[in-house]
Amino acid sequence: MPHIDFNNNLPGIRSALAYSPRTAEPLGALAEILLRSNEGLTPVERELIATYVSYLNDCFYCHQSHGEIACIYLDGDRELVNQVRKNYLSADISDKLKSLLAIAGKVQQSGKAVTTDDVAQAKNCGATDKDIHDTVLIAAAFCMFNRYVDGLATFTPTDMDSYPLRAKQVAEKGYGSHVYSSRQPV
Amino acid sequence: MPHIDFNNNLPGIRSALAYSPRTAEPLGALAEILLRSNEGLTPVERELIATYVSYLNDCFYCHQSHGEIACIYLDGDRELVNQVRKNYLSADISDKLKSLLAIAGKVQQSGKAVTTDDVAQAKNCGATDKDIHDTVLIAAAFCMFNRYVDGLATFTPTDMDSYPLRAKQVAEKGYGSHVYSSRQPV
Repeated sequence: MPHIDFNNNLPGIRSALAYSPRTAEPLGALAEILLRSNEGLTPVERELIATYVSYLNDCFYCHQSHGEIACIYLDGDRELVNQVRKNYLSADISDKLKSLLAIAGKVQQSGKAVTTDDVAQAKNCGATDKDIHDTVLIAAAFCMFNRYVDGLATFTPTDMDSYPLRAKQVAEKGYGSHVYSSRQPV
Repeated sequence: MPHIDFNNNLPGIRSALAYSPRTAEPLGALAEILLRSNEGLTPVERELIATYVSYLNDCFYCHQSHGEIACIYLDGDRELVNQVRKNYLSADISDKLKSLLAIAGKVQQSGKAVTTDDVAQAKNCGATDKDIHDTVLIAAAFCMFNRYVDGLATFTPTDMDSYPLRAKQVAEKGYGSHVYSSRQPV
């Protein structure tokens, strides 16, 4: 049961966003820029970083939700998304993305855990300064979103069919607060 | 040395915000709402929660910056801010704020660490659902801001006089991205 009365029955972060529309607006805007920009990293790379960090933070709602969005961008390759969650080094992804996932995993522990070697490795694999900036901020932002979702004990749907349905909506319409707070399935 | 070239010499988060104005805007808007709202929690309570979480995350730039802003609101009582950092249970603050700092400390570890007992304790001390929501989101947001600052190895000023100067600007003008990115001391 949620720790507070959200005055709605929405799942996961959507219940908290609907409860607090003033904070939902910048949070939605941040997610939109970080996850759907095509500048540098692709949307699928961004969603995979978000999925991986959410998995490390053990936030089921978030890693399931963002994993399903990545899955849509990957034409349904759910197995690849699972590999990124559990053992990205063996996944069929670029060395650049592997080096960025290594940085994201460090950020999940602590900002200070990121080393100059981690960054040099990513640059050797072709990552730009902006790619590194965006990776650090996506990873940091999911350390916030995951804590927001679980720190308030929001409702996590157990109906696994609901996640792909919701992912389709987000993939089509984005992360605006209107999407987060709308009263639709999942 | 910072992990990336920010193309500026600003300190701490301001270098990253100036580097990435598109993300600076929602980040500044979020900080403004979370830290300067007078609805429920007061600005000083909000800044003390931010200071405490930043201290737990060992982010010197952030706990120093927000501690100095709290200090302004407290008419210069730097000792109280230090007590909140190091042993808030012995600080001369309300039981309600102590119970919220306990929740914030749990969020710093993990969202899942917050228990129904923690929340019941805060409610017994007079915390409303909105107070608990805001505490969780402030704590979660500083788990992001701290990682953004340290994950990019931004420059941390060692001139301790610079923090009160900057705090005065923020206390007067707020957290809009224009404040974060302007080329002023600290």
